[in-house]
Amino acid sequence: MDGMVQNYPAMENGKYFDWAATSPMCREAVEAYVDAAERYIGNPSARHSSGREAKQFLTEKRERIAELLDCEPSSVYFTSGGTESNSIVLGGLLRFLSPGNLITSRMEHASVSEFKPVLRNAGWQITELPSKGGYVGAGDLEAALNPKTRFVGIMMVNNVTGSIQDIGTLTECVRKYAEGIKRRIHFHTDAVQALGKIPFSFRKLGVDSASFSAHKFRGPRGVGLLINSDESLASLSRGGGQESGLRPGTENIPGIAAMAAALERALENQEEKLKRAEVIKSLIISVLSPVSGIRILSPVSSPASPYIIETAVTGVPSEVFVRMMDKAGYSLSAGSACSNNAKGKVDDLLGAMGVPASIASSAVRISFSPDTASEDAFAMAECFRDTYKNLTGVRK
Amino acid sequence: MDGMVQNYPAMENGKYFDWAATSPMCREAVEAYVDAAERYIGNPSARHSSGREAKQFLTEKRERIAELLDCEPSSVYFTSGGTESNSIVLGGLLRFLSPGNLITSRMEHASVSEFKPVLRNAGWQITELPSKGGYVGAGDLEAALNPKTRFVGIMMVNNVTGSIQDIGTLTECVRKYAEGIKRRIHFHTDAVQALGKIPFSFRKLGVDSASFSAHKFRGPRGVGLLINSDESLASLSRGGGQESGLRPGTENIPGIAAMAAALERALENQEEKLKRAEVIKSLIISVLSPVSGIRILSPVSSPASPYIIETAVTGVPSEVFVRMMDKAGYSLSAGSACSNNAKGKVDDLLGAMGVPASIASSAVRISFSPDTASEDAFAMAECFRDTYKNLTGVRK
Repeated sequence: MDGMVQNYPAMENGKYFDWAATSPMCREAVEAYVDAAERYIGNPSARHSSGREAKQFLTEKRERIAELLDCEPSSVYFTSGGTESNSIVLGGLLRFLSPGNLITSRMEHASVSEFKPVLRNAGWQITELPSKGGYVGAGDLEAALNPKTRFVGIMMVNNVTGSIQDIGTLTECVRKYAEGIKRRIHFHTDAVQALGKIPFSFRKLGVDSASFSAHKFRGPRGVGLLINSDESLASLSRGGGQESGLRPGTENIPGIAAMAAALERALENQEEKLKRAEVIKSLIISVLSPVSGIRILSPVSSPASPYIIETAVTGVPSEVFVRMMDKAGYSLSAGSACSNNAKGKVDDLLGAMGVPASIASSAVRISFSPDTASEDAFAMAECFRDTYKNLTGVRK
Repeated sequence: MDGMVQNYPAMENGKYFDWAATSPMCREAVEAYVDAAERYIGNPSARHSSGREAKQFLTEKRERIAELLDCEPSSVYFTSGGTESNSIVLGGLLRFLSPGNLITSRMEHASVSEFKPVLRNAGWQITELPSKGGYVGAGDLEAALNPKTRFVGIMMVNNVTGSIQDIGTLTECVRKYAEGIKRRIHFHTDAVQALGKIPFSFRKLGVDSASFSAHKFRGPRGVGLLINSDESLASLSRGGGQESGLRPGTENIPGIAAMAAALERALENQEEKLKRAEVIKSLIISVLSPVSGIRILSPVSSPASPYIIETAVTGVPSEVFVRMMDKAGYSLSAGSACSNNAKGKVDDLLGAMGVPASIASSAVRISFSPDTASEDAFAMAECFRDTYKNLTGVRK
């Protein structure tokens, strides 16, 4: 880095607690963006030196990302984000001339779940697994698998509650069943909330494909990854053949450079960061849970991302509470940001997990990051507590 | 601008003549990117202040771009590039339960033309208009229109030869015919090579939709525009409902800021730039055309972008010539960059225009920009001429 970007703030905004919605680009990512924009001016598809240099850079980044995610470089596809990655895989199912059965959870992000009506229209039969308490049970998945099953899509870390599915066990169920019927069943996981937060190994999970979004780990917006090892996957998009035809369009070299830089940073000392996050999560919960009326909806004893705490401020509508916290300078979410465009989605999701509607309508999500300071988290929790007490007149 | 980006080069690389493939990000765009990455950390879909500020910024940019392109702000959709913009429109045709007739030219970019087999499979009947000399005739279009026609897609500026279609006249033919049959016919134009180069007014052209790519006018890669006024257009992508559901995914605020900055810059004094470009084009042609064996395939007396000169170095394979020029430091293209991933495309295209295969295999594209200095263009043309003479032993 030659210090091209001056005075760019560390951006550790101590009052931002909506990291699961999006995260500020880290300095390293911004530097990498500007640096690549300067260096690689050619189109990677061009045959002159400036094109070849761009292509070489792309190859290096692909190899490095494969190393970081534990997969083959040929499985790395650069996309414009998590939504597009999911769309390539789900939309790609429309290529099947004889649609089959698709199994998914009731907790998926809209970029997966909104494909259900599209696929149903195209003749697919959809099985939605129960997701009580925020988890998909291996037994339920086993019971749902049938000879027509061609696709299973289950999200790795839920964006609302943080619950972590045991994807490894679920893929094993599917592999065994697929071997028995001698037919491929594609297993896809939306891992947008996982990468940079909890350990991720493509090989160990045993999935066929996984989606990621750079702006969730302080990389740039508009850049994402699809890791896919299923050679039969085909995309509906058409164009100049880039990314093996799965994601055509001139490659976003500066964006990819920025994503790679952010990923390197996010994966440094991940275990240590995870421990710190668990402490911060406990700290926040220890301030909030004693207050009668504040409920912690995120799993506490089951596997869950420490970076997401879904709460319910009973008696207060989510929007009102978020607005009050905003007045105090804090950014929190009434559910997930995406779902604000499509009201009711969070209620649906929490409903599927077994949360009554009366409580879901008071849901408030706190999400933070490895860069969040515990003092800031503590101050936020105190403000959260006091705001709730003031609004409801609760004394304790 | 607060000067956050230091030492970023002007990047006026005097030996880069592949601007139609991609262009280096201008300083203004890089500054705008870094500035927006710092300022707008919230997700525009979030309800807290930092989300609302991001949304407000997005609204302002949408309004400004609408002003610059002469359309309604509600017609502006931010996408990940020209390929995606074309994919949204062409892929969206798959939503029709009863497919009809689609009319297109033989000169389209792969992101349009590669949809032909997909749509044929879905039951669409495709009419390809003759494109002799690089132009679609209004008469041919009129003759092709039929009661089943639902879609016409004709590119505005050809990426290989620079020929400019008279889109205004073509849309008028379609409008008249559509009125007669009382049925909507959607007219789409891929205007990727037009914006920032030749004047563009959405209203005046009368099209229903148009595609653009930011990296063609010194904006960022991975960012584009779809201008669309057809409310019935629906996308196959699914997600959080952003961009009115037509292009879901968290909005790329820094990328959009950078695109807007590059567009402002590109549209400044456009007429004057166009005049300069005409002079540069004439200059290059005046050096090359006297050489026996060098042919100018781009239109000289018909409407064409001055920024693209397609040549043929007869007797020398395109790749060989491009390599020789590369050794001298010059970036030229053997056709279009995208088509390098899919060999034979340029030959097809030139073939459709009436260029014999023997000449098409020697095609070399020179493309430049409003920022190209005439001295640099003259030096390139001299090097081009001398390289050809050396390779072929031509004296004159």
